[in-house]
Amino acid sequence: MTYDPASFEAYIEANRDRFLNEFGQFIAQPSVAAQKRGVREMAALVAARLDATGAEVTLSETEGSPIVFAEQGPPDAPRTLLIYNHYDVQPEDPLDRWKSPPFEMTIRDGRIYGRGVADDKGELLSRIQAVGAWRATQGELPVRIKWVIEGEEEEGSHHLNGWARAHAAQLQADGILWEGAGYDEEGRPMFGTGVKGDAYFELRCKGPSHDLHSSVAPMVPNPAWRLVWALSTLKDQDETITVDGYLDHVAPLTDAEWAAIDALPMEFEAMRERWGIDSWLTGADDFHARRRYISEPTLTISGIHSGYTGAGSKTVLPAEAMVKLDFRLVPDLTPELAQDLLRQHLDRRGFTDISITMLGGEAPAKSPLGSLVERAAVAASQDAWQKTPVMFPWFAGSGPMHSLSTRLGIPVIFAGATWHPNARAHSPNENIYVEDYFRSMQFMGAFIHRFATLPAEVIDSA
Amino acid sequence: MTYDPASFEAYIEANRDRFLNEFGQFIAQPSVAAQKRGVREMAALVAARLDATGAEVTLSETEGSPIVFAEQGPPDAPRTLLIYNHYDVQPEDPLDRWKSPPFEMTIRDGRIYGRGVADDKGELLSRIQAVGAWRATQGELPVRIKWVIEGEEEEGSHHLNGWARAHAAQLQADGILWEGAGYDEEGRPMFGTGVKGDAYFELRCKGPSHDLHSSVAPMVPNPAWRLVWALSTLKDQDETITVDGYLDHVAPLTDAEWAAIDALPMEFEAMRERWGIDSWLTGADDFHARRRYISEPTLTISGIHSGYTGAGSKTVLPAEAMVKLDFRLVPDLTPELAQDLLRQHLDRRGFTDISITMLGGEAPAKSPLGSLVERAAVAASQDAWQKTPVMFPWFAGSGPMHSLSTRLGIPVIFAGATWHPNARAHSPNENIYVEDYFRSMQFMGAFIHRFATLPAEVIDSA
Repeated sequence: MTYDPASFEAYIEANRDRFLNEFGQFIAQPSVAAQKRGVREMAALVAARLDATGAEVTLSETEGSPIVFAEQGPPDAPRTLLIYNHYDVQPEDPLDRWKSPPFEMTIRDGRIYGRGVADDKGELLSRIQAVGAWRATQGELPVRIKWVIEGEEEEGSHHLNGWARAHAAQLQADGILWEGAGYDEEGRPMFGTGVKGDAYFELRCKGPSHDLHSSVAPMVPNPAWRLVWALSTLKDQDETITVDGYLDHVAPLTDAEWAAIDALPMEFEAMRERWGIDSWLTGADDFHARRRYISEPTLTISGIHSGYTGAGSKTVLPAEAMVKLDFRLVPDLTPELAQDLLRQHLDRRGFTDISITMLGGEAPAKSPLGSLVERAAVAASQDAWQKTPVMFPWFAGSGPMHSLSTRLGIPVIFAGATWHPNARAHSPNENIYVEDYFRSMQFMGAFIHRFATLPAEVIDSA
Repeated sequence: MTYDPASFEAYIEANRDRFLNEFGQFIAQPSVAAQKRGVREMAALVAARLDATGAEVTLSETEGSPIVFAEQGPPDAPRTLLIYNHYDVQPEDPLDRWKSPPFEMTIRDGRIYGRGVADDKGELLSRIQAVGAWRATQGELPVRIKWVIEGEEEEGSHHLNGWARAHAAQLQADGILWEGAGYDEEGRPMFGTGVKGDAYFELRCKGPSHDLHSSVAPMVPNPAWRLVWALSTLKDQDETITVDGYLDHVAPLTDAEWAAIDALPMEFEAMRERWGIDSWLTGADDFHARRRYISEPTLTISGIHSGYTGAGSKTVLPAEAMVKLDFRLVPDLTPELAQDLLRQHLDRRGFTDISITMLGGEAPAKSPLGSLVERAAVAASQDAWQKTPVMFPWFAGSGPMHSLSTRLGIPVIFAGATWHPNARAHSPNENIYVEDYFRSMQFMGAFIHRFATLPAEVIDSA
């Protein structure tokens, strides 16, 4: 199996206009999962592009957006690669802050603007087009490729887990190439072998049937106080999560993982400045802040509301109180475990009147360091970009990786890069550099080659 | 000094149409303090009515609404009565829920509808008209009367305190007749010799410069958590206020005060049903719930807000958190004391980053039981209505009583009644019974007589 990057890149160069034109069609098709707007049309467009590269495509229905599943390459190829991306995008509002229409490709100063160009349509299409360029220039694919392209990532991937469970046999692969994380401030691609999980709950406590005059406070239970008291038992002022038994489920990290964390380049000063804070939480130094950022589970109050919150004073005793709690999960925590332990913890302290609703849950995902996909991605980064990526043992953010990787036992790499630090994903004026779009295709060509040809195991020299 | 109720009441009967016509003019003049709408015109209308009864009237300017101050009756009368009412009203919205225009007197089924008919224009004008009726039928007043009629009661009486301090000498009197509290469910007038005070604070805590993605939670302080932790130190789960040193300032009640509280008729079952609660706070029985209602200071979370509080999930770490705290004050607590102790308490625990803004403050007011005004009011209730009032040692609500009574050392009685339990003060379709309007005039005639003639001191028979 040989790979000729020169012909591959010459083909890309010769077809730039066509590739950008196809990208413009992707951008022009709204696919806002939160509003179920255009997702079906977008899935059809993705399917058509895959079909054009010779893939067998299935639009697989779920109770939400359809999942585009496709296969191509020799069925008897020695290795199978699973590629994950998503075709849905965040809502475009506030519309008045866009300098050009969100669903229209606009190129200004070397950047492509439009909703979803960074997250995740640019990478998705550049990967499909790269496979087309491979076939046009290198011949048959050296690996079997399976595509899983979902349409609800921005909404929490609510149906991916059940779908993956039902299609487990079809999804077997030797490695997963996940969507990429972009470049850091110094232009280094950021790769990772996992993500934290997330469990998001809404807690509610009810008091009287309607807001009462606060003079009755000596007689009537106040749900805001009850919620404050309950919350104060969940995390102490040293930032330690005190939900009974919770921390017992945090798996220790290996020395290699700690070393990988300590090696992560982070712009500590710039981050503090950007966020407007003087020092890290609990006064931690940079070294420990980084360790905590990556390694620790979190319990965040993302929102809290009760009673009157307008200007001035209103002397009421509120009828209801609500809090939104975001738990970031590290192995071996799961959303179900978080919910069970939280319920038991509250019940044990008499807070049986506080209801818990899970609004979203994704288990953490972690692949062992040194997997084939990881090594292939690092090599491809060096081949295509002459850059060694920054490697995160896992990212502090979350995603639906668990459903496809940890659960199915397939190693995964979060790799590739179309985003730059000011890409404004999820915000108005989302953009990527035109050249990063084509560099993503170069990475993809190199990755296919490396994934097909690297030895299966690392030979330990020690 | 004699009083002939028959001629007084015959005069009222003969002038019903004129009195109601004048009341209609009062209702037709909007006087919404919150919007500074019509307050000046309303003050002039009140002044004109007082002038017509022979009073010397001054429109006393403040930085807010003018205070109508008036004096009448013999300057050398042996006793001086100070009367407090207010001419401002609550905003009329929501307008679409009124069955007739809020600023138009409408009489339906024996009730008068209009904004302010209960709170407080009906009682205000009926008292002025009663003084006119006295002079028309009984001759010279047997007491000196001083009127203090403010125009910012619904907004927190922000300028009354400073005004009263500046006019202390002019305000000297032997007793104060405060605005009345209305009738209870069984038609008994509710009188009182004081009110709780109130201190209302907004606390704010700032975190990062803007809402951040919650994945940074291991590194960035969360103002919502800080506020929750701070709040949890202010009151414990047994509902005991734990602000350092706070409860040391609560004066013990006398046996007579406890006896007066225990004698208060309260519709416990109906109250629980109306408020939609199964039991009183901390499971107290009715007897102790009543004692706590009247005797205890409170600390109420009236509102709390931070971060995302809309539908579904948003994984943010909020930039700011805010809480509104309502302290009901019993003697000898004051708003200033509450603020100082709260600040010290928070500082001592490291919450120096939480700001405190006082949005409103009124000290508690309490007159000794058995004062001349109290005895005159009870006797007048029996004279005019053949009813013994329910006597509250103090009301659980608050008002600007302290400025005129406690501070100036003048006993006060919260007496008279125009409201019935469904008067809907502060709400659409505010109303009083037509007959209660005229009964308020009868009470006023009897009260003037009793205040002028009762012995100054109670002779203790023990």
